[in-house]
Amino acid sequence: MQFKAIVHIMPRPEILDPQGKATQNGLRNLGFGNVENVRVGRRVELEIEAATQEEAEAKVREASRKLLANTVTEVFHFEVLA
Amino acid sequence: MQFKAIVHIMPRPEILDPQGKATQNGLRNLGFGNVENVRVGRRVELEIEAATQEEAEAKVREASRKLLANTVTEVFHFEVLA
Repeated sequence: MQFKAIVHIMPRPEILDPQGKATQNGLRNLGFGNVENVRVGRRVELEIEAATQEEAEAKVREASRKLLANTVTEVFHFEVLA
Repeated sequence: MQFKAIVHIMPRPEILDPQGKATQNGLRNLGFGNVENVRVGRRVELEIEAATQEEAEAKVREASRKLLANTVTEVFHFEVLA
């Protein structure tokens, strides 16, 4: 069976996020003065072949840990849709 | 009122996504041979001050169009939570 997975990867809350800070400064320069705590992460979409939903979830978790996310500096969560 | 927004930005389906292709190749080299159509986008989280949910949504839409996303090559959608 083919499953679709969406993996959300964000910098850990305690880690500085220079890209988020730059984005926040850009928004303020455009007049969005009331924007705070901008954090920039990644969203990865993929399709994966697996026998069951559980197997698909296990594979996506492993792929996220091994390659998609850097778990030292990032946290991830994901959804798997049949 | 303070609202939290999550903006999801992905490359348009018809646009090549070299980062997604590189990620897919990396996953295959790790043994995830059954992964396809990997696409890499961004997830931006922010907090915004607005009087109403509608105002917050309008501001987030404008911020996404003007700065967060490049609408020529990317599509975005967002959620605004009170």
